[in-house]
Amino acid sequence: MTPGASPGLLIPLPDAVGTVIDVVGFSPSDIVEKKNVTVQEVAELRERYHCLWVDVHGLKDVQVIEQLGTEFALHPLALEDVVGTSQRAKVEEYPHNLFLVARMVATTGQLDTEQLSVFIGRGYVVSFQSTPGDCFDQVRTRLRKDHTRIRDSGADYLAYALLDAVIDAYFPTLDKISARLEDLEDSVVDNPDRSFVSALHHMKHELLTFRRELWPHRDMISVLIRQESGLITDQTDLYLRDCHDHVVQLVDMIETYREIASGLLDVYLSSLSNRMNEIMKVLTIIATIFIPLSFISGVYGMNFDRTASKWNMPELGWAYGYPFALGLMAATAAGLVYYFWRKGWMGRKKRDDSS
Amino acid sequence: MTPGASPGLLIPLPDAVGTVIDVVGFSPSDIVEKKNVTVQEVAELRERYHCLWVDVHGLKDVQVIEQLGTEFALHPLALEDVVGTSQRAKVEEYPHNLFLVARMVATTGQLDTEQLSVFIGRGYVVSFQSTPGDCFDQVRTRLRKDHTRIRDSGADYLAYALLDAVIDAYFPTLDKISARLEDLEDSVVDNPDRSFVSALHHMKHELLTFRRELWPHRDMISVLIRQESGLITDQTDLYLRDCHDHVVQLVDMIETYREIASGLLDVYLSSLSNRMNEIMKVLTIIATIFIPLSFISGVYGMNFDRTASKWNMPELGWAYGYPFALGLMAATAAGLVYYFWRKGWMGRKKRDDSS
Amino acid sequence: MTPGASPGLLIPLPDAVGTVIDVVGFSPSDIVEKKNVTVQEVAELRERYHCLWVDVHGLKDVQVIEQLGTEFALHPLALEDVVGTSQRAKVEEYPHNLFLVARMVATTGQLDTEQLSVFIGRGYVVSFQSTPGDCFDQVRTRLRKDHTRIRDSGADYLAYALLDAVIDAYFPTLDKISARLEDLEDSVVDNPDRSFVSALHHMKHELLTFRRELWPHRDMISVLIRQESGLITDQTDLYLRDCHDHVVQLVDMIETYREIASGLLDVYLSSLSNRMNEIMKVLTIIATIFIPLSFISGVYGMNFDRTASKWNMPELGWAYGYPFALGLMAATAAGLVYYFWRKGWMGRKKRDDSS
Amino acid sequence: MTPGASPGLLIPLPDAVGTVIDVVGFSPSDIVEKKNVTVQEVAELRERYHCLWVDVHGLKDVQVIEQLGTEFALHPLALEDVVGTSQRAKVEEYPHNLFLVARMVATTGQLDTEQLSVFIGRGYVVSFQSTPGDCFDQVRTRLRKDHTRIRDSGADYLAYALLDAVIDAYFPTLDKISARLEDLEDSVVDNPDRSFVSALHHMKHELLTFRRELWPHRDMISVLIRQESGLITDQTDLYLRDCHDHVVQLVDMIETYREIASGLLDVYLSSLSNRMNEIMKVLTIIATIFIPLSFISGVYGMNFDRTASKWNMPELGWAYGYPFALGLMAATAAGLVYYFWRKGWMGRKKRDDSS
Amino acid sequence: MTPGASPGLLIPLPDAVGTVIDVVGFSPSDIVEKKNVTVQEVAELRERYHCLWVDVHGLKDVQVIEQLGTEFALHPLALEDVVGTSQRAKVEEYPHNLFLVARMVATTGQLDTEQLSVFIGRGYVVSFQSTPGDCFDQVRTRLRKDHTRIRDSGADYLAYALLDAVIDAYFPTLDKISARLEDLEDSVVDNPDRSFVSALHHMKHELLTFRRELWPHRDMISVLIRQESGLITDQTDLYLRDCHDHVVQLVDMIETYREIASGLLDVYLSSLSNRMNEIMKVLTIIATIFIPLSFISGVYGMNFDRTASKWNMPELGWAYGYPFALGLMAATAAGLVYYFWRKGWMGRKKRDDSS
Repeated sequence: MTPGASPGLLIPLPDAVGTVIDVVGFSPSDIVEKKNVTVQEVAELRERYHCLWVDVHGLKDVQVIEQLGTEFALHPLALEDVVGTSQRAKVEEYPHNLFLVARMVATTGQLDTEQLSVFIGRGYVVSFQSTPGDCFDQVRTRLRKDHTRIRDSGADYLAYALLDAVIDAYFPTLDKISARLEDLEDSVVDNPDRSFVSALHHMKHELLTFRRELWPHRDMISVLIRQESGLITDQTDLYLRDCHDHVVQLVDMIETYREIASGLLDVYLSSLSNRMNEIMKVLTIIATIFIPLSFISGVYGMNFDRTASKWNMPELGWAYGYPFALGLMAATAAGLVYYFWRKGWMGRKKRDDSS
Repeated sequence: MTPGASPGLLIPLPDAVGTVIDVVGFSPSDIVEKKNVTVQEVAELRERYHCLWVDVHGLKDVQVIEQLGTEFALHPLALEDVVGTSQRAKVEEYPHNLFLVARMVATTGQLDTEQLSVFIGRGYVVSFQSTPGDCFDQVRTRLRKDHTRIRDSGADYLAYALLDAVIDAYFPTLDKISARLEDLEDSVVDNPDRSFVSALHHMKHELLTFRRELWPHRDMISVLIRQESGLITDQTDLYLRDCHDHVVQLVDMIETYREIASGLLDVYLSSLSNRMNEIMKVLTIIATIFIPLSFISGVYGMNFDRTASKWNMPELGWAYGYPFALGLMAATAAGLVYYFWRKGWMGRKKRDDSS
Repeated sequence: MTPGASPGLLIPLPDAVGTVIDVVGFSPSDIVEKKNVTVQEVAELRERYHCLWVDVHGLKDVQVIEQLGTEFALHPLALEDVVGTSQRAKVEEYPHNLFLVARMVATTGQLDTEQLSVFIGRGYVVSFQSTPGDCFDQVRTRLRKDHTRIRDSGADYLAYALLDAVIDAYFPTLDKISARLEDLEDSVVDNPDRSFVSALHHMKHELLTFRRELWPHRDMISVLIRQESGLITDQTDLYLRDCHDHVVQLVDMIETYREIASGLLDVYLSSLSNRMNEIMKVLTIIATIFIPLSFISGVYGMNFDRTASKWNMPELGWAYGYPFALGLMAATAAGLVYYFWRKGWMGRKKRDDSS
Repeated sequence: MTPGASPGLLIPLPDAVGTVIDVVGFSPSDIVEKKNVTVQEVAELRERYHCLWVDVHGLKDVQVIEQLGTEFALHPLALEDVVGTSQRAKVEEYPHNLFLVARMVATTGQLDTEQLSVFIGRGYVVSFQSTPGDCFDQVRTRLRKDHTRIRDSGADYLAYALLDAVIDAYFPTLDKISARLEDLEDSVVDNPDRSFVSALHHMKHELLTFRRELWPHRDMISVLIRQESGLITDQTDLYLRDCHDHVVQLVDMIETYREIASGLLDVYLSSLSNRMNEIMKVLTIIATIFIPLSFISGVYGMNFDRTASKWNMPELGWAYGYPFALGLMAATAAGLVYYFWRKGWMGRKKRDDSS
Repeated sequence: MTPGASPGLLIPLPDAVGTVIDVVGFSPSDIVEKKNVTVQEVAELRERYHCLWVDVHGLKDVQVIEQLGTEFALHPLALEDVVGTSQRAKVEEYPHNLFLVARMVATTGQLDTEQLSVFIGRGYVVSFQSTPGDCFDQVRTRLRKDHTRIRDSGADYLAYALLDAVIDAYFPTLDKISARLEDLEDSVVDNPDRSFVSALHHMKHELLTFRRELWPHRDMISVLIRQESGLITDQTDLYLRDCHDHVVQLVDMIETYREIASGLLDVYLSSLSNRMNEIMKVLTIIATIFIPLSFISGVYGMNFDRTASKWNMPELGWAYGYPFALGLMAATAAGLVYYFWRKGWMGRKKRDDSS
């Protein structure tokens, strides 16, 4: 997006893939599937079938895309969005067709999304994706059966079927995230390691991204249901409503996961504080017991000259001086241990007390 | 939900239970209750009673459900939602009936919800649940009395009665959560143990889930009140308004509990900090008092050769050297104790001061 | 609220108080006040006065309440809400009257609310409270003066006067909370004790409750102003607008107090951290200065046999060995003190620096 | 605000100041300014001038205010709000005039606001303030020039001019807060002292208050623009739109300052943690190095009887025993220093590393 | 903005730059570009071209701006906003033209914005900027080509082109911020230094500012699309819709960056806590092991007189007394090391455990 560049100019992205056009033409009782056709062939098929699905993969060859644009009266501004591939989900009404953008979970297994651009017109659906893999195999299978709803209906129902497949593909992805979240929940209780925070941060990042991608689908489908171009039948509106419910459910799930993830950080931080308390308690107990004892032994290690006067360390000459000193130390230690035990820092109470 | 699968296809969940149909047919002065009937019998009863409640438990036998669908003109998309059992609360208007989904607190005592799907048509209510137990016993009892409002009214009032029972069943569950929250509030003041945080996290998780389940009921009932299919009488609208109030009150309570739970975490964390301060104060007081004393005793334990010069440790030869050393230590300790007492870390001020 | 129980059934709460009916009948120039009357007497007075205020205390005798319901055509659903006493503020339009619920600050001095239920009809206001004490003494006094606005106007103005008294009674209560909040603000700066956090938590709890109780009054009054039953005159709408402003102001105040309370917790937590830093600084300074000194004295307390060779502790035999050792210690201590002074942990900079 | 008190009753606040009426009467080519006039004189001037600005200071003499109310048909409810002086900004439409309340930054330099109440009628503006000082000197100066817009226009433009002056007076106040915020931002990086948190808390308190006061001005001006009493000309609407923009900008600024202030607390808290880490590192390094050294010297200070056997401390009799002991200590110290240096707690890496 | 100053008065800002007028006149087949022209020349060119772009840099010479205002009927209030340069994005409809304000990213490389004010009239666009540099070079280049859309269309499309260039110029700036955010994300995992928090605070500050600047563009463009002055053609509305999408996308990105930045602070704080735990563990391990050992050596360094009785430190005379003492120390140390190893504070478990 060069600031100030002329709108409607198609510039392929650097990593764009060569354009391949697949086409499916069908009527209730007839179907033809062709792979890798030319725009010319598409135009011919368009005449002969009730409904045509032009399925374009790869957005590198902008001339081909422009030819398709001419054939199906696709607006240059819409085509610019098709090639740009960083649009949010939206629907735009143009004189001859509806243009809608959806974000499709990548089939690569990574948590990434790919742009699906769809034009819905009378008797045709033109869909554009940047890479070959997609989640439409079930739709293709359903198309191959004669006299099914998808074959009997027109372009609007086909477009719905594509959109529904896109939305439903989010569920398994969210289930994976949910499983990872449960793993984190378990690990934070048992023994969270240092990677916990960055794993959590990463997950929140992903959930944020998904929410940002999914949220506009809600509006998009609502607008699609409400729009009055005549390209969407009332019958299909019912199905779109169902699709809308799924988006709401997905966004709901994401929100819940985000709140749980936020809560986990609190649990982790309080667990860190707990550990610190425990570490400090060990240090405090050991140091507090032995420092006075060392002091006592230090006192009796002084070298005052006992011959100089009877006041100089007479204990050293006592018959029981040493046992007395050891006893003094033992008593001191016992007193401190008792003190810590009373505070609940040692022994029995330790098991059910965090302090 | 297989992405791209055909909508309206009924696939029972793996853990679905065998389908049992109970039926209650009634008119103001007459009532019949039959358990475990066939769709055929339902069709016959439908002719003979003013209003019919078809109460379906278990969603495994999809053929039976499809037969019911044919008998009562239930839309395939709605039936798909019935079998899916993970819908949010909603209401949908179909040509011949209203379809509504509510989430019912599980009767198992666990904090889980079960989907209740209800179709309201002229003269019939068809309700679907995944498991046998429910909260409708009071409704069944009220139905058995002649000439009561529920017997005089039609399907819409019966549907309201079911919905009202579902909503009201949330109150005892929330009361249980409230009691647990109060326990946590008490324990955080007395002595919170290590399980506190995970208990709190668990409770916030539950409240989040309940809010997510309850929230859509608000919209659902509003839509029900406002809809104009003629299936809901104005009289029943009054009752639904009451039901709406209860949902708002429940959501309100959940929000309040969530905010209190959030506040409790702050209390817990500050209590952890307080404990840490206390531990450190004990260590600091003991170490700070004894380290200088040990140093003094260490000095007088040095082995400088007093015979080499008069500058070498003459104190060791003093008549009162030892008492002097002990006195020096006592003075140092007293000074430090006074210092800590002034800072409020020891003694009198300790009782009413957190520092 | 037993799930599934029949709506409109009046079941008194366990702690309900015996029902007493007071009544005030008035016209611009005439007024009668009677205490503890029967429904029969109410019906008679209703004939004779321009406007009647039936003031019911105690909700135990449901028969009496049902008789009143019959006399004034009060809807059973509304009466159920009257007896339930846990309703949010709301207004409901019934064929013959308006039913409104408000939450009244308890007169007991505790931060609790009591439900006030009011029916407004042509020529009568019926109000229900669960306990005798209320905030309507000023209203009663105003009623006793002839030819005042309250006497000249009808039931709608009287209902406004009651509502206004209820709303205004929140102000002194909030002032008390505000005073307590200022106390907490002072104490967190001076010396927060351990009870600070639970006091703050308690206050946030209260503010949350008040907001939850007050918030619906806003909608309630708006609906009252906009409703078109003819029971509320335009003149009274002006006054209700004023009342609405007061509710908005109250909610505003509560929000502000809540944000301040949240801020106070941050102040408290950072004060805890500051104290910890201070404690650790004391420990670190003392330990860091004396540990090296003790080490030096320890070295010269070793018992190496000076007669074995001239390399064994020749310092012990030096004429100035002891002064040298003391000097070494003094130099070490001075160096460390200087180091801490440079870091700002000691001395002059301590006064205006938290570190 | 005594709960239940009669509305429309004017009770001066305890700290109210004696009422003084200034008046400015003007037409495009003529102007008269009189200070300290009576209501009688106001009434006379009203006849003779195109437009009259009655500028009332001090709200103690409620009789005077009531006389003005009678003269200009000011509604009692509005006058009650004038005297109460704790209203939020709002506009109310009364039969003969518009009543608007704005909050004016106090001229005393303190961050406080004062209520400005304005009535706009045909040919007059009556404004009430509780204290003499205000921000209208510029308006008075502009009024004194002949044939300016303010002189050519009527009461609505004058009211706009007052409102605009009130809004614009917030900008310098916010600039002061912004400057203080930048000071805090600087100090938190350099060396935040203990007063930082309470200064920040205080500032957040102020911003909260300002937002609460300013926010309703937005609605107030919108209502003023949209209202259709005919008292505000379309020409003035253009100017009010400008004023509305300023309020939005002010609220925007306040929100930004609040978010920055919240962020600063995080910076401060992490700075506290950093300091704590630093303190602990110093302690740990010193203690960890010297404790083992002291232990070694302690070992060679033991008094085992070397004559009893050759196993008893033979090192003491070695020729190089003492140098060996010193070497052992040096090696231990060097090892620990290297360990800390590797961990990045000491030396070179310290400069650019927080750990 | 002096409070109370007369609106519509043009006062140049202190740092304003001298005003220079460039002009581009064009029709589909003809174009003229002139730099540094007078208002007189502008007026002449206006006659001769289909559409005129008056491109004004520098806002110091208010007379020149006022002359332009007279020539093109620009409203004084709008001109005041032009000169003020601190307006939010907005659009205002005046009798003869539309006035819109946008915020343009500064070309200086710093994250600052500059105000662009644009008047759209019939056959002219007048744009004002405070400094010469801008992001319109692409627009100028496109203008120079004959028979392009920009040359064929009128003033509305030119204004769109300017607006689009302004919006698109935000993308590279946000990409820079995104890159910096990723750097921070990397550094917080590796080794965050002390500058991390202030860098993060600074970035949040910038994002806050950008959001505040960008947000109003959304409304501005919506209003522009919906407005019905006839100055914007339906054709251009399509393009503006595209521009609107870009703003939404930008705001979305900013929100996401802000949430990530907030999350980073949590990661940083937990990393600080982790480090503290690690430091304390080192101290605790060393101190806890050596303090008891030192105590033992202290005991055998006491000077009790073994000749006084056989109870006085007989160990000192044992043949294996010294090895026994060393063994005792070794056993103590081994016991403590085992204890710490079991707690997971030392050795093998340390690598994958945060505690």
